[in-house]
Amino acid sequence: MNFKQKIYFFSQTKTDGDQSMPEILGGKGANLAEMCKLGLPVPPGFTLATRLCNDFLKNKKLSLSLKKNIKKHVKKTEGVVGASFGGKNPLLLSVRSGAPVSMPGMMETVLNVGLTSKTIPHLVVRSGSERFAYDSYRRLIMMYADVVMEKALGLNKSNTEVRIKMERLLKEMKKKKKYKDDSSVSAKHWKELSFKYLALIKKDFGVEFPDDPYSQLFGAIEAVFSSWNGKRAQEYRAFENIPDAMGTAVSVQAMVFGNLGEGCGTGVAFTRNPSTGENKFYGEWLQNAQGEDVVAGIRTPHPILAESGLKNSLEKTMPAAFLELDRTRKQLEKHFDDMQDIEFTIQDHKLWMLQTRTGKRTGIAAVKIATDMVGERLISKKTALSRVRPNQIYESLLKNIEPDSLIGAKALGTGLPAGPGASCGAVVFSAEKAEELGRAGKSVILVREETSPEDIRGMHYSDGILTSRGGLTSHAALVARGWGKSCVVGCQTLHINKNMLSGSVGDTKIKEGDWITLSGSTGEIFKGRLPLFQNPLSRSGPLNELLSWADHTRKLKIRTNADTPEDCKKALGFGAEGIGLCRTEHMFFDEKRVRGFRKMILSDDKKSRVSHLANLLPFQTKDFYNILKVMESKPVTVRLLDPPLHEFITIQDKEVELLALDLKQTKSSVLARIEFLKESNPMLGHRGCRLGISYPEITEMQARALLGAGMKLKKEGFNPNIEIMIPLVSHINEFVNQKNVVDGVYKELLGARGVSLKYRVGTMIEVPRACLIAEEIAQHADFFSFGTNDLTQTTFGFSRDDTGSFFESYFESNILPGDPFEKIDKDGVGRLMSIAVSGGRKTKKTISIGICGEHGGEPDSIRFCSELGLNYVSCSPFRIPIARLAAAQVEL
Amino acid sequence: MNFKQKIYFFSQTKTDGDQSMPEILGGKGANLAEMCKLGLPVPPGFTLATRLCNDFLKNKKLSLSLKKNIKKHVKKTEGVVGASFGGKNPLLLSVRSGAPVSMPGMMETVLNVGLTSKTIPHLVVRSGSERFAYDSYRRLIMMYADVVMEKALGLNKSNTEVRIKMERLLKEMKKKKKYKDDSSVSAKHWKELSFKYLALIKKDFGVEFPDDPYSQLFGAIEAVFSSWNGKRAQEYRAFENIPDAMGTAVSVQAMVFGNLGEGCGTGVAFTRNPSTGENKFYGEWLQNAQGEDVVAGIRTPHPILAESGLKNSLEKTMPAAFLELDRTRKQLEKHFDDMQDIEFTIQDHKLWMLQTRTGKRTGIAAVKIATDMVGERLISKKTALSRVRPNQIYESLLKNIEPDSLIGAKALGTGLPAGPGASCGAVVFSAEKAEELGRAGKSVILVREETSPEDIRGMHYSDGILTSRGGLTSHAALVARGWGKSCVVGCQTLHINKNMLSGSVGDTKIKEGDWITLSGSTGEIFKGRLPLFQNPLSRSGPLNELLSWADHTRKLKIRTNADTPEDCKKALGFGAEGIGLCRTEHMFFDEKRVRGFRKMILSDDKKSRVSHLANLLPFQTKDFYNILKVMESKPVTVRLLDPPLHEFITIQDKEVELLALDLKQTKSSVLARIEFLKESNPMLGHRGCRLGISYPEITEMQARALLGAGMKLKKEGFNPNIEIMIPLVSHINEFVNQKNVVDGVYKELLGARGVSLKYRVGTMIEVPRACLIAEEIAQHADFFSFGTNDLTQTTFGFSRDDTGSFFESYFESNILPGDPFEKIDKDGVGRLMSIAVSGGRKTKKTISIGICGEHGGEPDSIRFCSELGLNYVSCSPFRIPIARLAAAQVEL
Repeated sequence: MNFKQKIYFFSQTKTDGDQSMPEILGGKGANLAEMCKLGLPVPPGFTLATRLCNDFLKNKKLSLSLKKNIKKHVKKTEGVVGASFGGKNPLLLSVRSGAPVSMPGMMETVLNVGLTSKTIPHLVVRSGSERFAYDSYRRLIMMYADVVMEKALGLNKSNTEVRIKMERLLKEMKKKKKYKDDSSVSAKHWKELSFKYLALIKKDFGVEFPDDPYSQLFGAIEAVFSSWNGKRAQEYRAFENIPDAMGTAVSVQAMVFGNLGEGCGTGVAFTRNPSTGENKFYGEWLQNAQGEDVVAGIRTPHPILAESGLKNSLEKTMPAAFLELDRTRKQLEKHFDDMQDIEFTIQDHKLWMLQTRTGKRTGIAAVKIATDMVGERLISKKTALSRVRPNQIYESLLKNIEPDSLIGAKALGTGLPAGPGASCGAVVFSAEKAEELGRAGKSVILVREETSPEDIRGMHYSDGILTSRGGLTSHAALVARGWGKSCVVGCQTLHINKNMLSGSVGDTKIKEGDWITLSGSTGEIFKGRLPLFQNPLSRSGPLNELLSWADHTRKLKIRTNADTPEDCKKALGFGAEGIGLCRTEHMFFDEKRVRGFRKMILSDDKKSRVSHLANLLPFQTKDFYNILKVMESKPVTVRLLDPPLHEFITIQDKEVELLALDLKQTKSSVLARIEFLKESNPMLGHRGCRLGISYPEITEMQARALLGAGMKLKKEGFNPNIEIMIPLVSHINEFVNQKNVVDGVYKELLGARGVSLKYRVGTMIEVPRACLIAEEIAQHADFFSFGTNDLTQTTFGFSRDDTGSFFESYFESNILPGDPFEKIDKDGVGRLMSIAVSGGRKTKKTISIGICGEHGGEPDSIRFCSELGLNYVSCSPFRIPIARLAAAQVEL
Repeated sequence: MNFKQKIYFFSQTKTDGDQSMPEILGGKGANLAEMCKLGLPVPPGFTLATRLCNDFLKNKKLSLSLKKNIKKHVKKTEGVVGASFGGKNPLLLSVRSGAPVSMPGMMETVLNVGLTSKTIPHLVVRSGSERFAYDSYRRLIMMYADVVMEKALGLNKSNTEVRIKMERLLKEMKKKKKYKDDSSVSAKHWKELSFKYLALIKKDFGVEFPDDPYSQLFGAIEAVFSSWNGKRAQEYRAFENIPDAMGTAVSVQAMVFGNLGEGCGTGVAFTRNPSTGENKFYGEWLQNAQGEDVVAGIRTPHPILAESGLKNSLEKTMPAAFLELDRTRKQLEKHFDDMQDIEFTIQDHKLWMLQTRTGKRTGIAAVKIATDMVGERLISKKTALSRVRPNQIYESLLKNIEPDSLIGAKALGTGLPAGPGASCGAVVFSAEKAEELGRAGKSVILVREETSPEDIRGMHYSDGILTSRGGLTSHAALVARGWGKSCVVGCQTLHINKNMLSGSVGDTKIKEGDWITLSGSTGEIFKGRLPLFQNPLSRSGPLNELLSWADHTRKLKIRTNADTPEDCKKALGFGAEGIGLCRTEHMFFDEKRVRGFRKMILSDDKKSRVSHLANLLPFQTKDFYNILKVMESKPVTVRLLDPPLHEFITIQDKEVELLALDLKQTKSSVLARIEFLKESNPMLGHRGCRLGISYPEITEMQARALLGAGMKLKKEGFNPNIEIMIPLVSHINEFVNQKNVVDGVYKELLGARGVSLKYRVGTMIEVPRACLIAEEIAQHADFFSFGTNDLTQTTFGFSRDDTGSFFESYFESNILPGDPFEKIDKDGVGRLMSIAVSGGRKTKKTISIGICGEHGGEPDSIRFCSELGLNYVSCSPFRIPIARLAAAQVEL
């Protein structure tokens, strides 16, 4: 490769570059070159290498020698096409950007370059259409004025953008002449408009529109290079971490026209169905039209294939061009080993390929295409595994809004996309109402300021959840993602009235029973009932096939976070190899138990607490029995009670009265105790093992329930695999204290029942101090499990429930590269994790270490965990397939 | 030294040990030996080495050879005294514990060992007093039954402790015989009581009281050894980190008696005044009494010196014994180089020294004695610096309750001692009322559930602060300590009625205007007005002299945390070398400003915020101007706005209405905004630099005020030394963002005013992530300042406002060795600090690093900071003298 080469020519007969050179030619230029090499019909042209972009941005102009070089290549292009730039058989050129990585819509394009007062009459003759010539001319003037003269050169002296003024002129003309659409405008009026445009430029810019073809070409090239440093492009690069020094290439190519009559057309297509993955040509075209017309949606495009029976398919209308296109489709797929997204134009029945690139696809399609291509022997299993982004698997499992129904639908408001997938249902403002209607089989959307564990049952019966507060790791978001429910949080324009029967989103009032639709993938809220679909492929053959390959490849084990036998079964279905986090607090929210649990909390002496706990023991024992039974001999990590107690007693007046009656206390004394239990910062308050230390009777009861259930199963011939996890340990003495309580209960049960049982006692590592003293903790603990939600909160000092108020500015100002509650923050949280892993392993080489925070289901974080040497990740059942794939990709 | 030696004899003529051997002989034994070596009159005896304690605890009995050895030493003692153990001229022995470190009251003593049915008649003869003999006997029986038979051997089979039963018998006897006090009991009745005791032992213990002198002696020795493992002693050692293996020595010594008639007496004394430090003999004695009578307070002791004019001083009553005692006093001080606490007995006009040890003293006395002794050439300046505990300096600066008035005073309740010193005043339940009465010159105690920055002004006008919630680092505690105000927090029995006019502490009702007295040093709350005193020595000569020596010795700089010119002046008076933390938020609580600040907070568009801030600019500029002026060219570190905004809008209904009027909004919309700003965990929420990032206009205003004030001063010929501190940085981009805002303001002001100014921009290091990325932060920051309060909160995951609910169990169960908010937690927080220091210095070798948390005034933490290589500590003005001394002690 000649690194000094500045311009790369391409044509069907001679081509300098190829697909391996996107760094030099940009993605577009490299693929145009490759198509030429394959002998495909590509309009000839040349690509200016990316490093010329840097030269230009430094010198602010194209050098003379480069201009000479460009002219040389224009001549070459003229030779291939048999036309001349600025001559009698006028060659028109397109000038397009093309960066090494895709930056869709971020940079500029100028078409029809080469049209001047001198060449227009020739084009009229050659095309046989004055209308076409002036339509092309007014397009050139508008694009050039906007991209080159206004944006790149800053010539506009008026306060209004030139394209707005030009669009206004077009609209006025159409109104005056009573045209319904552009396609009916006559040659005369396009001509008149072009002259108005030229006059406007003179007035606002103080210069004439260039009437020389090379002036136009150099201006366009300079403008495309300049657009690399446009504001939007810079921001996009900063956000996507694309280096500024990369630069864009510029491809200059002979124009071909799909709008020169009935023998012409233009279209875009995918080599396979990008929604379903089906191996069938999929695309649309328009007869007698330009490329932008297909995209703009002014006319409805027609299908390419005839199968739908419609006459105006490309297959029926231009069978020869179709056959060549279909051959090209197969050739491209075979060559690029992947589904392609192509653009083509047919000019006078001749097919021209304008672009090919790897096609974007839905999750379902990604899985289907990858597995199909293995079957077609196009790619290997390893390649197939790398072709699917883990999150695409998640998408493939969820409901979504029918894309067609989104056209013209305006969102009432937007929040954070907290639980992907879509849902629709009747609005309710309380968990009680959600449960009532949900039990009755109705679809409901629970709308709250924020949710708390008290709302769990109502959330369970809701199809979707919408909150006005909280961030992507708020309670609502965590629960929703855990259950694969769609959820939008932190919608700041949502307001709920005090009566809890009505409210508003932005200007729109909503009341109980109104239907709304949530898109958990975009955060949008729509009024009414938009149709949803769930692809029948989900959980089917291709996915299972792909995941079985993943299982053979990965080393990391995948466990699940599950609190009920139902969740466990679901998780096993998704491929879970154990439970990494069984939260015990949700078990207390059951109607039959919560009163008892509240009485325990409200007691201020140990004796009454012990007696209330004794009432809960049989329930909790049954819970554990059922879970352990479902999980057979797979490890089950049970976390002891963790949340602040007052979460259980955020209750209505009526419940306070009933509790007071039950406890034989006055209402005001119950209220006083509730008030007493309130905390300034509950996240850092009386919770986790601090509860078990203040109230050892709680730990005792839970240990009794769990070990008791285990012994029962062992007697019945099962082989339960129990891990007890002490939460929120920051000091070794906390751990030892609680382990002693557990071991004491075991000894007592062993004595009473004579059934011995193996169990392990370990800890969550979820505050910085635990990481720092991991070496010491490992002397006593059998395992570690990172709780990276809390660890992220304490490492940054961010409350996940309160980030809503400032994360927006943080992302806007690029303060944070991403949400650390979504992807593990490697420099901070990750460094602490690394200290913990090396500390723990120093003391106990084979200590089992996992992660059970939300990050356990996030692909980047899974990779990081694997690099740290963790044994497993644990995530919600719905994310297990993602984790299986992500863990496999680590090994590729 | 013979390490195998088990028993060390001491007498005026021959002594085995000396003062350098407390590890072997215990503190008491070593000093008895030393006194003997000095030729002082010490009753002879011998000390069993500490390692015998371990042997005993392992074998549960004294070996035969040891018993033989003990007998040999008893014989030696008999020889010196000229009496015989169990013989006709009966030698009686005391058996006392003595650990290498002082464990006051933790272990046992048995006196009068050797009294048996056989020796009593001889004692009657020798002493000439049957009464004396049986009084001594009943004392022996009671002590022996309690210490040896019940506690060590566990013989008591009844449910009541034997000493309680014996005291009951004594009381009954006195009632029946109508004795007013013990001293009038006749020989007959002591004898009768002794026999009742003997019968009781037989009944409850099932054995006879030993009537053999050596049985008594061995039993007593074994019991004293056993008491090393008593429950109280074990707990004390765990708490004080005293190793269990240390063991106690046992000193066996010939008894002397101060109660053998008018020529006898006993007393305790300090070689100088332990309250004031005055170099004057200070002590009390009782004629014809036993040592325990002086301590027990049954009879009122008399002074030793005659100066008070009282006839019954020792000086007047027994001039010869006094002269010998006074000579001894001088000799001991000269020998031990320190003030001594001595015990003596005079038997038949002969002085016997029973104990000498370093005397405990008040803070005032410690300073006075140390400086005086330098003047007297007894000790060096370095020694003087090491003699005063830093916290004693703090004590010496504060008011305290007159000790006499505490006799018989019962506390209404107890909370945590959050701000030492005492205060008394009228109860008020609101900050407004406190301000009203305080301004009128009344003494008030502000009583609240907890305090917030909103209460600052009321707190300022209060003499003391009492809260029902919060821990030692709650808002109330921090503010109180900063101002040197007495404060009791977390008094769980305090209840405040809703009317805010009355409440209760325990069973006692209190209402507005009632007087109470707080002891911030013990946490006690008293009803009424107890007299307070403040020693006139405080802030006077000796302290300043000591501190000037400290300044010559220390390397660490001492800055102060101060927010007002008044505090700055105070701090300079205490020796501050700069401001390490100037909080800007308190400046907004002034009446004239707070409304404007609230309006800023309640605005939801930038334009109105900017305009409200513009109104605050002149106030803040003036604040900074005055502070910078007072501090001259000393560094002044100003922290940008830090607390969550809603702290400023925890307001009454009336204020909401006024604000709504001002803002031309409805009341409900103001309330809605207030509600919106509430946070789940404000400590981890929208605060610190997060505010400045969301609302850069706040940072701009503050930078404008500070740099503007600096430029004004510079113009006036001053040389201000400004450091701007960005709070709560967790990511480098946060710091850079805010630094850019500050630098931008500087450039603008420089352009407008043409006055250049040097200033530094640095950051608080107060969340774990900041420590982890310190290397990166140092690339941009000019200085670091550790905020160890927040760092401790986030490292442990403890909210300082919520630790009250579980810290009690934590300290009870020894989970935490101490309060990490008081002393820096070296293993966790300290490790992060060390990572930060080495990271920061790696990038910028000379970067200035300090600490401005509460720990900056705590001696242990100061030592740790010095070891880490910090440049300065910053603490509240009142703690500066402490810090100066502590920093000097690091270098000794």
